Amino acid sequence: MSEVEVVIKEAISARDTFRNWRPADIVRLLNEVADNLDGAASELIKLAMHETNLPEVRLTGEVSRMSGQWRHMAAALNKGENQNVVKDPADNSLQPPRPDLRKTSLPIGIVGVFGASNFPFAFGVGGCDTVSAIAAGCPVIIKSHPGHPQTSRRVFELICESVKKAGGPTGLVNLVERFDSGIDLVKNEEVSAVAFTGSTMGGRALFDLAQSRKNPIPFYGELGGLNPIFVTEEAAKAQSQSIAKGFLESVSMGSGQFCTKPGFLVTIGAVKIKEEILNLISTTKTHLMLNESIRAAYENNLQNYLDLGFANLLARAQSTDDKVEPTTIIEISGSDLLANVNEALQEIFGPMAVIVDCADTNELLQVARAFHGTLASGVHGEPTDNVIENGLLAALERISGRIIWNGWPTGVAVTWAMHHGGPYPATTNPLFTSVGADSMKRFRRPITYQNFPQALLPVHLRD
Amino acid sequence: MSEVEVVIKEAISARDTFRNWRPADIVRLLNEVADNLDGAASELIKLAMHETNLPEVRLTGEVSRMSGQWRHMAAALNKGENQNVVKDPADNSLQPPRPDLRKTSLPIGIVGVFGASNFPFAFGVGGCDTVSAIAAGCPVIIKSHPGHPQTSRRVFELICESVKKAGGPTGLVNLVERFDSGIDLVKNEEVSAVAFTGSTMGGRALFDLAQSRKNPIPFYGELGGLNPIFVTEEAAKAQSQSIAKGFLESVSMGSGQFCTKPGFLVTIGAVKIKEEILNLISTTKTHLMLNESIRAAYENNLQNYLDLGFANLLARAQSTDDKVEPTTIIEISGSDLLANVNEALQEIFGPMAVIVDCADTNELLQVARAFHGTLASGVHGEPTDNVIENGLLAALERISGRIIWNGWPTGVAVTWAMHHGGPYPATTNPLFTSVGADSMKRFRRPITYQNFPQALLPVHLRD
Repeated sequence: MSEVEVVIKEAISARDTFRNWRPADIVRLLNEVADNLDGAASELIKLAMHETNLPEVRLTGEVSRMSGQWRHMAAALNKGENQNVVKDPADNSLQPPRPDLRKTSLPIGIVGVFGASNFPFAFGVGGCDTVSAIAAGCPVIIKSHPGHPQTSRRVFELICESVKKAGGPTGLVNLVERFDSGIDLVKNEEVSAVAFTGSTMGGRALFDLAQSRKNPIPFYGELGGLNPIFVTEEAAKAQSQSIAKGFLESVSMGSGQFCTKPGFLVTIGAVKIKEEILNLISTTKTHLMLNESIRAAYENNLQNYLDLGFANLLARAQSTDDKVEPTTIIEISGSDLLANVNEALQEIFGPMAVIVDCADTNELLQVARAFHGTLASGVHGEPTDNVIENGLLAALERISGRIIWNGWPTGVAVTWAMHHGGPYPATTNPLFTSVGADSMKRFRRPITYQNFPQALLPVHLRD
Repeated sequence: MSEVEVVIKEAISARDTFRNWRPADIVRLLNEVADNLDGAASELIKLAMHETNLPEVRLTGEVSRMSGQWRHMAAALNKGENQNVVKDPADNSLQPPRPDLRKTSLPIGIVGVFGASNFPFAFGVGGCDTVSAIAAGCPVIIKSHPGHPQTSRRVFELICESVKKAGGPTGLVNLVERFDSGIDLVKNEEVSAVAFTGSTMGGRALFDLAQSRKNPIPFYGELGGLNPIFVTEEAAKAQSQSIAKGFLESVSMGSGQFCTKPGFLVTIGAVKIKEEILNLISTTKTHLMLNESIRAAYENNLQNYLDLGFANLLARAQSTDDKVEPTTIIEISGSDLLANVNEALQEIFGPMAVIVDCADTNELLQVARAFHGTLASGVHGEPTDNVIENGLLAALERISGRIIWNGWPTGVAVTWAMHHGGPYPATTNPLFTSVGADSMKRFRRPITYQNFPQALLPVHLRD
């Protein structure tokens, strides 16, 4: 019996009992998990430091963020956010007469979750995909990322302890680890939806598998983005230093291993910003990347990008410390980008970004329109700068899940108004977010009861 | 240049201007179209009678339903239903500090719509997919069904007249007719979503195409269902006559050419219901099917079903009128269904259904669990009948978009609380409805503005 077959029976049983849980009881379970995770914070941080090279301060924040997501979703459930009640009373005066119709939503079924490499907590076993599926009333089978197995197992144990303490069914949360189990999970006909955070290549392969099933299922892949930041000609002159500084900090943060890293900075007349980048590059702070193969891929991808012929190395941080990964900024012209769109618009994981120097407003707008879907984008400027209403904002709205004004895309608040999503390849479904309370919506499906007797309706649909 | 290439440029231009329309102006456009369609009702009905064999009374109702959908969506827009505003103010007391975040939704982009054969109006060129996409702010390119080309063209002309009168952009609605154009439409990289109503086979082929694109897009296929109706043992005894009568009427309605036809009636101790069916079969009223090839396929599929070996012909209406299509009821046992699930659970388009006679409650529950996703299902009984809370209701909730109590699935009210959807193969996305105001949600995607200046925010997101 495969690893997935072993756990799927438990998950089916959990699905059939957990569906009857009242929101208040799920809230209790979610808060229980949050407390347990917080209580084990120092142990978890140590494990993850060992497995991921991520520094203590970052992991400390990430554990808080993880437990905070469980509390945030509990708060959302308390507001009744997953019930989606719509009622239309019977009306015989209509032609044709209308029956009594009451709509709500139900848990979608068993959810497969794929944890990410770069956030062992916030997008790992105890991450938002897991929380939002449970909050939606669904059992979860998690395929943990091989990059941090012990951290994953410990988070899993802590969640299981709390589920048990809260009286949750065995099999509400399960963990599988083998590569083949990921494939089995997506193909298993009892699995009703999948959530994934990771690379475009891996996510697309699993998406294709989910869509080619006999019964295709929703596949929510969060695959990243180039997160281009546009700087108006005016801002490039007036704020070159602060923009260069903020850009380098955002690119270097977490050694550039964020799906919201600003991969491109696009401007007109980049001379002053480039000067500031050269001045500031060696002040950037990074740490070792997640592991040696990711580091090697980063250096390799950088070199391949430079080998394309139209890209030049602008700046690379110098350091004698072998515990950092040098931040690297590459420069290309707007016209070269437009002549080589497919090659130029690549996502490279790591502390690097590309600065695109455009000849004029028209070229900058063409560059903006060349980008594909992205989790985030941004503009630096004043509201009155011409290019913004002349097409830049419209172009960014077409590709972006989130647009940031005079700021940087790294840092994704876990809150009601967050949209962490976007058109492909940012995600495989542009209608949903993988962060914030609305992420629950991915795992509820509507159902309408027609002319039902009160006693058989879900409690919240009764008169 | 292909048919789609010709119209896509217009659609791109319409997309970029229509996105700035205020909801109130879209409301005016929708109502304009409704009035124009109503004004041409008698002409439209004549055209469709000629092309589809559908009777005048049915088509009269369907034109009203079509125009009613435009008005219903206008009413939904008036209530602000497509704005989905969520605001989180900046909060520096949080750790990390939260920026100002404001979420709304935007039109998804150009929408491809595939009209159905069986509803030339309600699910045709002027059907709910077209209306909901326009209401969501999206231009539409419609691939009309070849079964009723003149009706489709005339509806298209009427819509275009009204769009023009309301000041809508050229290219807001376009029509293509060739088979290859349907393929081109799904593959065109400027098309951002597709809505389809039709067969499982055709819908699945287009779904596969949409998902295998370089940039996969949401594909909303409404593919039908078996719509099984369950009769408790008690109801089978006490209400055999009314159940047989209602069942035969629902199966025969529109000559069984509805995606909500009750294809299966499942009960325990079916003797009395079968007797009543035999008594009543020749009172059923049908009309000619849509065309000769559909009629031939119906008779062929019926014969193939009977040839499976475990299915028996229970009753077939006799008539000397060659303008009707004889209603046909087939019977199988619960145990034979369970032994031949794949062969037994077939959808056959036309005035036929299968009655499934189960040995006991346990067998009936197994049969219920054997069904795949379906638009609708139903129960006839009393709330206190044991089987209902012993697992029948839970089984139906897992497969159904809508569950009907002591009634029949044909007849789908266009209203807020309607869910016309369900797990695959009812649809290709169980989270959405293709009827009612919520159908607009398919064509809006969220976006979050972070720390944006008031002047650049969409009006409804400002303070």
